[in-house]
Amino acid sequence: MGKTDIGLIGLAVMGQNLVLNIERNGFTVSVYNRTSEKTQEFINEKCNNKNIIPFYSLKDFVESLSKPRKIILMVKAGKPVDDIINGLLPFLEKGDILLDCGNSYFKDTERRYSELKEKGIYFIGCGISGGEYGALYGPSIMPGGDYDTWLKTENILLKISAKSDDGPCCSYIGKTSSGHFVKMVHNGIEYAIMQIIAEIYDIINQCLKMKNNDIQKIFEKWNTGKLNSYLIEITSEIFKKIDTETGKSLVDVILDKAEQKGTGKWTSQVSFDLGVPVPTITNAVEARIISGYKDYRIKISENKKLENKLDIKNKKIFIKKLENACYAAILITYSQGMHLLKVASDNFGYGLNLSEISRIWKGGCIIRSKILDFLKNIYIENSDIPHLFFSELFMKNLEKNIKDLREIICVIKKKQIPLLCISSALDYYDSFTRARLPANLIQAQRDYFGAHTYERIDKDGIFHTKWSEEIES
Amino acid sequence: MGKTDIGLIGLAVMGQNLVLNIERNGFTVSVYNRTSEKTQEFINEKCNNKNIIPFYSLKDFVESLSKPRKIILMVKAGKPVDDIINGLLPFLEKGDILLDCGNSYFKDTERRYSELKEKGIYFIGCGISGGEYGALYGPSIMPGGDYDTWLKTENILLKISAKSDDGPCCSYIGKTSSGHFVKMVHNGIEYAIMQIIAEIYDIINQCLKMKNNDIQKIFEKWNTGKLNSYLIEITSEIFKKIDTETGKSLVDVILDKAEQKGTGKWTSQVSFDLGVPVPTITNAVEARIISGYKDYRIKISENKKLENKLDIKNKKIFIKKLENACYAAILITYSQGMHLLKVASDNFGYGLNLSEISRIWKGGCIIRSKILDFLKNIYIENSDIPHLFFSELFMKNLEKNIKDLREIICVIKKKQIPLLCISSALDYYDSFTRARLPANLIQAQRDYFGAHTYERIDKDGIFHTKWSEEIES
Repeated sequence: MGKTDIGLIGLAVMGQNLVLNIERNGFTVSVYNRTSEKTQEFINEKCNNKNIIPFYSLKDFVESLSKPRKIILMVKAGKPVDDIINGLLPFLEKGDILLDCGNSYFKDTERRYSELKEKGIYFIGCGISGGEYGALYGPSIMPGGDYDTWLKTENILLKISAKSDDGPCCSYIGKTSSGHFVKMVHNGIEYAIMQIIAEIYDIINQCLKMKNNDIQKIFEKWNTGKLNSYLIEITSEIFKKIDTETGKSLVDVILDKAEQKGTGKWTSQVSFDLGVPVPTITNAVEARIISGYKDYRIKISENKKLENKLDIKNKKIFIKKLENACYAAILITYSQGMHLLKVASDNFGYGLNLSEISRIWKGGCIIRSKILDFLKNIYIENSDIPHLFFSELFMKNLEKNIKDLREIICVIKKKQIPLLCISSALDYYDSFTRARLPANLIQAQRDYFGAHTYERIDKDGIFHTKWSEEIES
Repeated sequence: MGKTDIGLIGLAVMGQNLVLNIERNGFTVSVYNRTSEKTQEFINEKCNNKNIIPFYSLKDFVESLSKPRKIILMVKAGKPVDDIINGLLPFLEKGDILLDCGNSYFKDTERRYSELKEKGIYFIGCGISGGEYGALYGPSIMPGGDYDTWLKTENILLKISAKSDDGPCCSYIGKTSSGHFVKMVHNGIEYAIMQIIAEIYDIINQCLKMKNNDIQKIFEKWNTGKLNSYLIEITSEIFKKIDTETGKSLVDVILDKAEQKGTGKWTSQVSFDLGVPVPTITNAVEARIISGYKDYRIKISENKKLENKLDIKNKKIFIKKLENACYAAILITYSQGMHLLKVASDNFGYGLNLSEISRIWKGGCIIRSKILDFLKNIYIENSDIPHLFFSELFMKNLEKNIKDLREIICVIKKKQIPLLCISSALDYYDSFTRARLPANLIQAQRDYFGAHTYERIDKDGIFHTKWSEEIES
């Protein structure tokens, strides 16, 4: 038996679909799963007449691969990844390549990359986005690690990736853990956009009292315009779905407790460590957490009347303004995510290319959108801008819509509609476009009670004031 | 020479003041500092005729203490604490007690507590708040660790603590790292209140165009009412201060870049791990980070006109509404912080007593306020409520003011005033008082693109829907 082109470990849905994708693109694949029943099931049900070969020991699995061996890990992030690496190590040789395609925490990737490098094994931390469908028909792929290692894997990764009008949605991301870092930020942006859409839905539903089939039409229409994106598209699809059991809209019988798997949380936590503000992402995480306290919310809202209906004279104009507000909030979300990538790249020496990242996000991944084409072009022209707000083109586009974002917030907050993400987007804009903020008062307070010192606007240096007679010992 | 009652290591300002406080209360104190010059300086300048004895070796320092030895560490959080503990260990005996009074990260405290316990040394992670003045004349003290160890230190700690109308601002907090955890959350609340005050200042300054001496009078007046608190008081003092060099208000020449030392950031990061929403604290951290990008803000705001003046017919009524809005936002901030404490207590087995914590925060510390008396009484009546929003009394008080918070936001957001904290407070309220939130849409989206499943409102179970024909392989 000849050697296969690549191996994959971890046959949950994403892993299975990735295997089928690789095989469909002309490669032979060895597969392995911790529980062999899953492997057998997959082989029996989905691999008829396909160049997919099952193995039931790691040794046989590794020996079946052509050298340098390329092994994709598609297992749960955390300890399972370390376990499988340790299980593989006795059978690997110098020069072999592991590609971790799960949602691993980038600091784990950093550690694994270094530990394996010492052993002569190359490690690619490879972000993948696109869900089940993407894994099968083409995801967006974000591989990070050594450039030479990338060159040995690119023929497969480029082929299995999604294709947009701008080529394959896969590109070498940068050094060490950059692939997983970029995927994490992708998910942070995803959290924020999803929450923005949920807030918009809440407005249309609560304030305009529109029915689901009309809400559906709004999102469908928006998807043909500047908001064109996967998340708007599936939102429109969701409002079409009828629950077969009750005959109601399925969305209406779904419990309003948003779950999370951690990547949004990580993005927020890391942003604090790097000193990059991403309030719209952070507030999306907060909103999901709040939604989880469903029993508290039921109890606290007992006997409270909800009167959210707004008397809107011209609904059509109002909905146009909503679209602009949504667009502005999403533009601002991207600007926060890209800023985080820029600072991370500088801090960790990733060497990220933000136009390439925008380009490979144009297809396959969950946040794919027309906006990313706009961002890609901005970054091609100005690869070094520290923040999208430094781009005149970006600001011009944003400012056309910011007025409506402002108006929507002022009108809607009269009612009981939480707007954590939408509001934070405007507050972020309103902060970055103010040369002077009231933080001077905070510095004065800190110096007053803690002698933390302050700087001045009129000269260099660090200053401390004796604010009160009694305060100094 | 007789043995001294207690020792203190680390003679920066806070350490010095704490020593003077302990000595003034009738105890003899051994002192040590890594650099001996600082010790000498302190002894020469501030310890004339005082029962404060300097030591220049850790061995002599330890041997000077009566047993069980009690040693306060007042050094920079992080590695310096471990270094000094390692330096002390060769000279300590079983039963000796270390009290870390710095702003240590609670997970470090947890580790040190366990490591030292194995060696028979007792460790108290002791939060202290009150700044320089508090350290000297009475801070709020939050000691966590073993109750028996507390009993051996309480005579000193109770004496040196601040006294409110409710007794000494010191009480046994709870197990292991609870003291530092509670201090961390105290600081998180502090961040949020400071940012809320800064936003209010921004409104008065930018929208009402009032001068500093009039702003001063507003805060002075507020300090006599329901907002009575240390932070409002010092804010009023700050607006009195004239810069001797320029003759301007000092606050106006202070650079608007807010610094931070990490406790607010930790609070946010930990809240995410514990799944507790504290958006007003988190947004205060975001606001400080944004303020730090002063050079970006100057560049981005170039050629932008700022027209923030509002035409307010009755300023007096408007300012009354501002006071109510500020009060509501601060109440909500406390509710977030107390919720975090509650969940942490349940998760970590701290055994926190929230009425006692409210009581000892009434004096000495930075967030001391009239509101804490209100909270203390609520928790005395209902020690087990999972959230302050479950208290009718709390909600009644909050709801009297929430209308003005809402109105202020709707009016002010017409202008370019970032309200990250104030807005998030209302959004938090608007979320927790809604039985149904739009998070059902997020769950639908997650199930659509990632097969993450969802729950239903009408029956138990975990469900997955085939949302689209093309999506399943």
